[in-house]
Amino acid sequence: MDWTAIKDRAISFISEAAHRLYDPAIRKLDIETKEDADDLVTENDFAVQRFLTKKIKEAFPGHFVVGEEGEHEERIPEHTVTWFIDPIDGTTNYVHQYMNFAISIGIYFEGEGKVGVIYDVIADEMFTAVKGEGAYLNGKKLLPRRKVNFSQAIIGFNARWLVGRARPGTKEVFAGIVRDVRATRSYGSASLELAYIAAGRLDAYVNMRLSPWDYAGAAVLIAETGAECTPLFRGDQLFMESCTVLAGEKHVHEEILNRCNE
Amino acid sequence: MDWTAIKDRAISFISEAAHRLYDPAIRKLDIETKEDADDLVTENDFAVQRFLTKKIKEAFPGHFVVGEEGEHEERIPEHTVTWFIDPIDGTTNYVHQYMNFAISIGIYFEGEGKVGVIYDVIADEMFTAVKGEGAYLNGKKLLPRRKVNFSQAIIGFNARWLVGRARPGTKEVFAGIVRDVRATRSYGSASLELAYIAAGRLDAYVNMRLSPWDYAGAAVLIAETGAECTPLFRGDQLFMESCTVLAGEKHVHEEILNRCNE
Repeated sequence: MDWTAIKDRAISFISEAAHRLYDPAIRKLDIETKEDADDLVTENDFAVQRFLTKKIKEAFPGHFVVGEEGEHEERIPEHTVTWFIDPIDGTTNYVHQYMNFAISIGIYFEGEGKVGVIYDVIADEMFTAVKGEGAYLNGKKLLPRRKVNFSQAIIGFNARWLVGRARPGTKEVFAGIVRDVRATRSYGSASLELAYIAAGRLDAYVNMRLSPWDYAGAAVLIAETGAECTPLFRGDQLFMESCTVLAGEKHVHEEILNRCNE
Repeated sequence: MDWTAIKDRAISFISEAAHRLYDPAIRKLDIETKEDADDLVTENDFAVQRFLTKKIKEAFPGHFVVGEEGEHEERIPEHTVTWFIDPIDGTTNYVHQYMNFAISIGIYFEGEGKVGVIYDVIADEMFTAVKGEGAYLNGKKLLPRRKVNFSQAIIGFNARWLVGRARPGTKEVFAGIVRDVRATRSYGSASLELAYIAAGRLDAYVNMRLSPWDYAGAAVLIAETGAECTPLFRGDQLFMESCTVLAGEKHVHEEILNRCNE
């Protein structure tokens, strides 16, 4: 299988889909003038998913597609290339901020991530990776992640994780992490925040509830830069319906993992 | 005083300073290849401040400059146009992320904000405002902020405010706010997060410790879109050495203010 060629097709599908959402020439998003933005986002989410699915099925009739927007009740067949697609990751940002949302594709085969493509539509940042070939941002190779001291780490961590329902003791552990790192950030798009780990902008990212299409693409990028992407809690498993996710530079990842599983 | 002409000069000073930090043609920041990035950021912070101060003094010999990087021991003289400058706001982002940092200028006269200019160097977003003339993003007028329901609000709120030292009861109030709004975000640059309120990307922003140059420019933008910028706690005062800041769309601002001062 020529994964590089497949990656290039994924890039072109995403680029075309993005252009339907946003016209860079006039810096304008199609929802900006609409009153009922919240309804429209759902509509556009479906439309992008349908568009990507059609493109994938035309180019690769034997491949399987799993998307955020339903239509994937059947089990993923074995020995089949599977595309995990998130048509608009960060829909709240999309509808409210007109920025910091992404289209994400992760392509898997025999349980292994082969291709990851994540596109930040407004910032025009295309993150790409093919297993074994490295990760790239707009065609520029991303450097392998070097060791980051925990006290110097910048982590993607939403204030919500400190106030919501959580396993007993979790909030105290989280509070200690937030206190001990250099800084926390939160952008509201899991696929971008995970891609930022590959790009060196974040040293870890924690999310208490993600679905496979949220991280399938980013996980390939992360692996290619020598960082880690696992469940936060032992016992959880990636690629279940919904699970905790902890990604990060190896040392920062390990420190958080240890603290959360003591 | 022709504040529009002064605003245009501020834009040109900032643009020139930005170009010294970042070359958009090759999408490269001058610190990216350096090992001792943390030292260098301080150096560049000073260099940009010196550059801006020189430009301002040349163009407006009678004006006074207050900057983040010292050299402002003397009291602000009365009846004097005063420039509050933050050469690099979001230095942690600058050195670690190569994005989400800004150069900020706020120009005040007789205690009133007259001009605000904030430039996101990497995203190439220039936020500008002249008192009474509206606020703009890259030359496009920003709409007056419309009412936002608290439960629909997206607020700029760092997880740190939930775990640090705080006045008794504050953390519980904060936790309730974080729980009740639609979402929280954190970008690590106060001037940008405040400008995002004018731009409609955030509906409120809370910071427990800001200096005048962090919000002087943004406060003008915020006022021009009908939003509010005040201390978070009654008894605090803006433009002191360091104070709490709460900015937001009027209704969201009021709700947070009430909750924090009960």
